[in-house]
Amino acid sequence: MTRAVCPGSFDPVTHGHLDVIERTARIVDAVVVAVGTNISKNALFRPDERVEMLAEECAQWSNVEVTLFEGLLVDFCAANDIDIISKGLRAADLGYELQMAQMNRQLTGVDTLFLPTAPQWAFVSSSLVREVATLGGDVTSFLPGRIAARTMERVASRHTGATSDM
Amino acid sequence: MTRAVCPGSFDPVTHGHLDVIERTARIVDAVVVAVGTNISKNALFRPDERVEMLAEECAQWSNVEVTLFEGLLVDFCAANDIDIISKGLRAADLGYELQMAQMNRQLTGVDTLFLPTAPQWAFVSSSLVREVATLGGDVTSFLPGRIAARTMERVASRHTGATSDM
Amino acid sequence: MTRAVCPGSFDPVTHGHLDVIERTARIVDAVVVAVGTNISKNALFRPDERVEMLAEECAQWSNVEVTLFEGLLVDFCAANDIDIISKGLRAADLGYELQMAQMNRQLTGVDTLFLPTAPQWAFVSSSLVREVATLGGDVTSFLPGRIAARTMERVASRHTGATSDM
Amino acid sequence: MTRAVCPGSFDPVTHGHLDVIERTARIVDAVVVAVGTNISKNALFRPDERVEMLAEECAQWSNVEVTLFEGLLVDFCAANDIDIISKGLRAADLGYELQMAQMNRQLTGVDTLFLPTAPQWAFVSSSLVREVATLGGDVTSFLPGRIAARTMERVASRHTGATSDM
Amino acid sequence: MTRAVCPGSFDPVTHGHLDVIERTARIVDAVVVAVGTNISKNALFRPDERVEMLAEECAQWSNVEVTLFEGLLVDFCAANDIDIISKGLRAADLGYELQMAQMNRQLTGVDTLFLPTAPQWAFVSSSLVREVATLGGDVTSFLPGRIAARTMERVASRHTGATSDM
Amino acid sequence: MTRAVCPGSFDPVTHGHLDVIERTARIVDAVVVAVGTNISKNALFRPDERVEMLAEECAQWSNVEVTLFEGLLVDFCAANDIDIISKGLRAADLGYELQMAQMNRQLTGVDTLFLPTAPQWAFVSSSLVREVATLGGDVTSFLPGRIAARTMERVASRHTGATSDM
Repeated sequence: MTRAVCPGSFDPVTHGHLDVIERTARIVDAVVVAVGTNISKNALFRPDERVEMLAEECAQWSNVEVTLFEGLLVDFCAANDIDIISKGLRAADLGYELQMAQMNRQLTGVDTLFLPTAPQWAFVSSSLVREVATLGGDVTSFLPGRIAARTMERVASRHTGATSDM
Repeated sequence: MTRAVCPGSFDPVTHGHLDVIERTARIVDAVVVAVGTNISKNALFRPDERVEMLAEECAQWSNVEVTLFEGLLVDFCAANDIDIISKGLRAADLGYELQMAQMNRQLTGVDTLFLPTAPQWAFVSSSLVREVATLGGDVTSFLPGRIAARTMERVASRHTGATSDM
Repeated sequence: MTRAVCPGSFDPVTHGHLDVIERTARIVDAVVVAVGTNISKNALFRPDERVEMLAEECAQWSNVEVTLFEGLLVDFCAANDIDIISKGLRAADLGYELQMAQMNRQLTGVDTLFLPTAPQWAFVSSSLVREVATLGGDVTSFLPGRIAARTMERVASRHTGATSDM
Repeated sequence: MTRAVCPGSFDPVTHGHLDVIERTARIVDAVVVAVGTNISKNALFRPDERVEMLAEECAQWSNVEVTLFEGLLVDFCAANDIDIISKGLRAADLGYELQMAQMNRQLTGVDTLFLPTAPQWAFVSSSLVREVATLGGDVTSFLPGRIAARTMERVASRHTGATSDM
Repeated sequence: MTRAVCPGSFDPVTHGHLDVIERTARIVDAVVVAVGTNISKNALFRPDERVEMLAEECAQWSNVEVTLFEGLLVDFCAANDIDIISKGLRAADLGYELQMAQMNRQLTGVDTLFLPTAPQWAFVSSSLVREVATLGGDVTSFLPGRIAARTMERVASRHTGATSDM
Repeated sequence: MTRAVCPGSFDPVTHGHLDVIERTARIVDAVVVAVGTNISKNALFRPDERVEMLAEECAQWSNVEVTLFEGLLVDFCAANDIDIISKGLRAADLGYELQMAQMNRQLTGVDTLFLPTAPQWAFVSSSLVREVATLGGDVTSFLPGRIAARTMERVASRHTGATSDM
């Protein structure tokens, strides 16, 4: 039985993330979506909130479970009998992603598979979504309905006058 | 009438920025140079200073005006009847720039046009100029005369012994 | 009055090409779509056929005209009072495109503006479409209706058993 | 049961190819190695020879079979109940590979997974191996023993005085 | 006599760094390994510790010396009669590295030469090594023996439960 | 004594080539400029003509010689006591150049150093120069005076009506 992990911070989970999780679930027997516990100062949701939100979205796939993880990803894989790391791949991220994948394979032999980001989500990332939402932009087309509602609600209490690259 | 925005932090404005502003001014009817109001801890000039410095440099083009902006760039465009975002493009920045351009077009339909950076300015960026100037390097060849003078003056009071990648 | 050229071989014109032509027509006053006369051995349509097909598709935009061109693009620009070359930009093509744009600006001062390819067409190119169609694949979703019909018709008489990267 | 195809021309099969085939065989239930039938003028081995050579190398993995294919890869997938295309990924190839993967997913829904090339094979490609071998270079470290022997033998009868980029 | 500098933070020095230093020492007459004095909050070793560790590793090459540097690298070169900056090059870093190299050449004429990273170290960087080590991963295969021992020792007193991209 | 080779087809030699040859001549003790003997169908000058033209341009540097080479570059290096291959590097070429450099180092241990292309020549390549010249464009600013004269003269007898990407 092949088990894969889809790691990330998922703050918040986007249509692009769900697309990768669903495609991974079609390739392997079981998928563990692993939410990092790091708390950055720009975080919108707490890790436990992200797990809860993801779990609701992933309930539609019987071979997907969602959990927190901390420490080294390859150690998480070893502890959970996971053979493969699965990630969406954008052209812009390739350099760093290849470096991490080769490092992880060297560390414990765990392999990484990349799924090309769907064209319609290629420009959507959680950080860009957070930034647009924080500045009052409409991000509903990039997020599942429930996630969009919670995201808009969350940023409402924080709306600042900050400028950004966007 | 086509109106474009050239957004940036312009801290300080370089020959490369002015090249892009001038070329944009030849393509569209009116150009708004929009200076972000974010204040990073490494900033050299306050946003209002940057507007003043840019306004002086852009006075030579009758269809260019300079202003501050805050919030989402696409909202600024909507409020100011602007159809197009115009930016210089360096090979190294493409991934992130494409992502923002596609996001902006999706948000409100505002389009982005990229002008290839002139070869002689391809390695000049405000942040590299700030870094070189702060470490005592001569940046006069990358900046218009008045801007160079103010930049050298500003960093003189800050010269530190820090090492950098440069 | 600003005039731009959208150069290409358009063999055949795709939704991606039309997206770039339409966006250019919104930015400048007049657009000339210039069809190269080179005849490669893999060509599907003759240059005059491509002009005719493009003219039909572009009839919906009053400030767009279609023509053949031969020789150096900057000479065509000079002869036709054209200030700007406008092109769609894919991440993968950037290196060569920047090189040509800087060369063209150096040759006669004609500038190039790049419009980021729409995400949904980012993977569509005429050559890939020709290849898929020749191998019997369905390319109707990448092409305007009339173009798709003519493309399917044209390849029908050539269907070979060749393998390809696709 | 998940079935994947590893497509290629394999002229000749390298250690890098076998690494990708083996890793794919660990992720999915069955792997079909599909050898393209195109005959380029620089080909070293005929398609049937490549199938035979690959079959010998892949005999060590019980869930891998080798076959010829012609026509569109997605049609081959449909005809053979294959859900996934699996490929090794080098940084340099990303642009074109992403384009083909997104095109293939659009055509029939077949997905592509990329496995990062192992660092030690990142610079090895069949075409470079052919070029080096043809010019009298020693390519034994890039190829399985039997393949190396046949490659050296094959080029011996063709050794030319040609220069190359190598 | 040609003198080159290999600049960096070397926190800690990796096999990849030593490979570049050794290759540079074969090309030029004398190599100065220059350790930046910046202290980031994620630093593992103090600059003087890094110099000491590097000096021990470089003792095997008679034309290599190790020193601290602060300020602008081109000023350090001028003060030390150094003509060339020598760096390892990874595909992922090219954009920023080219920009700095062209800036440095413009500032004082000092040239930069890039040596392609050895494939087996292409995924190893000091920051990734620090991150893996801090999370309890085994980094001994990426570092010389003495450096690995000191790195493991140093992180032992800091082991946190933080998650990371790894 | 360190000896480097600058390999290429130099059809014709450009300012960019001479910039790289001159910079290499400052770094190493002796430089061999090696002209490939391959004759492509688009060649402008015969290999012996290119050697003669290069020799004239390189006469100004006492430690540079020019010669023809055929066969594998690493074999040429071994036969001529050359330790290093030196090449100009453009952002766009990196992928393939890294691959060849790593292959060459693996074959015989010969190392490659890359010098970043000077910004003002970053968009100039022999093939683009040939294409522009063939279509009647003025290429004198990209070439040394004597080379420009011979290039214009050579293409005069071939001027065709062909279109090109330029």
